[in-house]
Amino acid sequence: MQWTDVLATRNSRMKASEIRELLKLLDQPDIISFAGGIPDPALFPTETFAKAFENAMSPEHAATALQYSVSEGYKPLREWIVGEMAKIGVPCDVDNIFITSGSQQALDYLGKLLISPGDTAMVTWPTYLGALGAFNAYEPRYARLDPFSNAEPATLQAEAAASSGGAGKVKFSYLSADFANPTGESLSQAGREAVLDQAEALGIAVIEDAAYQSLRFDGEPVPPIMALDIARNGGIENTRTIYCGSFSKTLAPGLRVGWVCAAKDVIGRLVLMKQAADLHSPTLSQMATNYVARAIFDQHVAKIKSVYSGRRDRMLAALDREMPAGVTFTRPEGGMFIWVTVDEAINCAELLARAVAEQRVAFVPGGAFYADGSRLNSLRLSYSCANDAQIDEGIARIGRLLRA
Amino acid sequence: MQWTDVLATRNSRMKASEIRELLKLLDQPDIISFAGGIPDPALFPTETFAKAFENAMSPEHAATALQYSVSEGYKPLREWIVGEMAKIGVPCDVDNIFITSGSQQALDYLGKLLISPGDTAMVTWPTYLGALGAFNAYEPRYARLDPFSNAEPATLQAEAAASSGGAGKVKFSYLSADFANPTGESLSQAGREAVLDQAEALGIAVIEDAAYQSLRFDGEPVPPIMALDIARNGGIENTRTIYCGSFSKTLAPGLRVGWVCAAKDVIGRLVLMKQAADLHSPTLSQMATNYVARAIFDQHVAKIKSVYSGRRDRMLAALDREMPAGVTFTRPEGGMFIWVTVDEAINCAELLARAVAEQRVAFVPGGAFYADGSRLNSLRLSYSCANDAQIDEGIARIGRLLRA
Repeated sequence: MQWTDVLATRNSRMKASEIRELLKLLDQPDIISFAGGIPDPALFPTETFAKAFENAMSPEHAATALQYSVSEGYKPLREWIVGEMAKIGVPCDVDNIFITSGSQQALDYLGKLLISPGDTAMVTWPTYLGALGAFNAYEPRYARLDPFSNAEPATLQAEAAASSGGAGKVKFSYLSADFANPTGESLSQAGREAVLDQAEALGIAVIEDAAYQSLRFDGEPVPPIMALDIARNGGIENTRTIYCGSFSKTLAPGLRVGWVCAAKDVIGRLVLMKQAADLHSPTLSQMATNYVARAIFDQHVAKIKSVYSGRRDRMLAALDREMPAGVTFTRPEGGMFIWVTVDEAINCAELLARAVAEQRVAFVPGGAFYADGSRLNSLRLSYSCANDAQIDEGIARIGRLLRA
Repeated sequence: MQWTDVLATRNSRMKASEIRELLKLLDQPDIISFAGGIPDPALFPTETFAKAFENAMSPEHAATALQYSVSEGYKPLREWIVGEMAKIGVPCDVDNIFITSGSQQALDYLGKLLISPGDTAMVTWPTYLGALGAFNAYEPRYARLDPFSNAEPATLQAEAAASSGGAGKVKFSYLSADFANPTGESLSQAGREAVLDQAEALGIAVIEDAAYQSLRFDGEPVPPIMALDIARNGGIENTRTIYCGSFSKTLAPGLRVGWVCAAKDVIGRLVLMKQAADLHSPTLSQMATNYVARAIFDQHVAKIKSVYSGRRDRMLAALDREMPAGVTFTRPEGGMFIWVTVDEAINCAELLARAVAEQRVAFVPGGAFYADGSRLNSLRLSYSCANDAQIDEGIARIGRLLRA
């Protein structure tokens, strides 16, 4: 059939899907897996969600919960988010907030809005796999975002143009500044300012992926890039930063509720895009998220931070004990991940095959997180769903593997 | 700021949003509006949904309902849909079913999958406004889909290529064969076969939008195009039809649950696309839809058909009584809409302004449903949310307007 030929030319390079297939294969009872990057379901605030759904089906709310709604999102939830943004140095109003189906949808829409084929997206090396998956559909090339590089804007723009026959432009920087997936690392305030300096010089947007922003266990909070942008430019309408938030890591991912906070001009374009793409995120998900957030957000986030920080401590202690000399790893102040770097000669995709076959332990090989597939000697460990015994035994197994 | 310049060049032509703005303006207590195309919220099966959410929050299901899930959709729901598809002549298996966030998302993904800028999408004249909105993001041109035209495939392809400097191709036909929005009309079996004949000759896909398929009040059911395609070609894997279903008109739109039924090759590509775009539709929406569909689908659809068919009858009787000579209108066998055609000299957008100002009655002017904006002398009436008194009085007001 001729029309299937069309399909074959589109949407290649979707590496995130390969990782997900891998995770499915690894889901076996005798494998200790640090591969998944998901919240611990035992920590979901199920009872409060149950009350939220009961409330949504009450005579007062049912017709709203089940009917078509507006593309920008459920207003009471957007109002609650305005309050939260103010607490982290981002004064804004309800028209600066747009509800998405998870922050993944925000990344997809921003790719669609900003990237023409051959344009350049600047991303950290490594970066979030799902961001590469979302952006890839719009056929960008990638350049390395290094906040402390001395790369000249003119040089970056010339490279972008040269790479696509003169048509390409650098369109945005994308990064996660707090407890990034996959490294767990955070960017200093000086680094955040440097990202803004470079973006201003290039005349590009900054996409700040704040999926883990609420999950700081210790250390000093650093203002979001969005807050620094507002402080520089006198108000949110003058900013170039597009802040992407999410309830997936704080309340529950299955409801698919995230948000974008940005200047109204940007929000207006995203709202039009959503009208055309899926009309609106499910009303009920938004109503329930609003109910649960207003009822228990701070206390619930305190609870999960307490559990996750204990697991981080346990995993760091195990790594200190078990890793052979020469192996380095990050010491995150929050989030769900530790990033381990091994000898340059080791390809961690091959190491994973051995880890599963010989030691029944799993992780995500680091190469997938590099837009250019470089740097094969790292691996990502998640502690979010592991108990103490699994952490101790699993890290010991990785230690044996690396010493073998 | 330079980067906002990028925004200005993308995503124009979103007429659906203008219509939605209009509907908001018309939402005033003294206006009788036949403009909205939404289900009557009084008919939502709220009690069964309440049980469904209670069930989803039970210890057995809560962790699944609130956790990340697979991009293809919740398997028990896909299995239920397989049974429904079999009943309408579409034997398939669970891997032929993909859950979307409403059928609007299916249209967006199909546009993304199939359209390169300058390609041609064939659509009926008029067609569903939301389909134009979804496809417009991918910058197609439109050609008129007329099942009974004698247009030569070679001519159509040559026109497509000529219109975009040699690069454009005809990529698909899109239509709603049952009780289409906006006309309420259905396509005969001969017409459906003709659409398939033309698609085979052109080597293109057929997108069958079945949003209203379950809402037949009377008349003889006609097999879906998908069923005719399977009958011709010996099985779903050999078909070119992509069937888009929805629970928005049968159960409730606020949950945003629809589906695509197609050959596995197509489904596989849509699943990858969804992984990159929003990971998956909310698990809870899918679980609740599955629960409610299994509990009450047939009896609930029978109930809403009984109510809507009564309203259709009432509106047709009022039109028979009130419309002046020369005004024609469709007599739908199902769905939510009646399409009224008035004198060619009348611009129904201007008529709407007068209708609201002079008679306090509203409808959607028909021009928005034409991809080329032609044909201004039609209007769409929806009877789904109107009671008998509103129908009698509202149609009388339109009659007075047209006689003035």
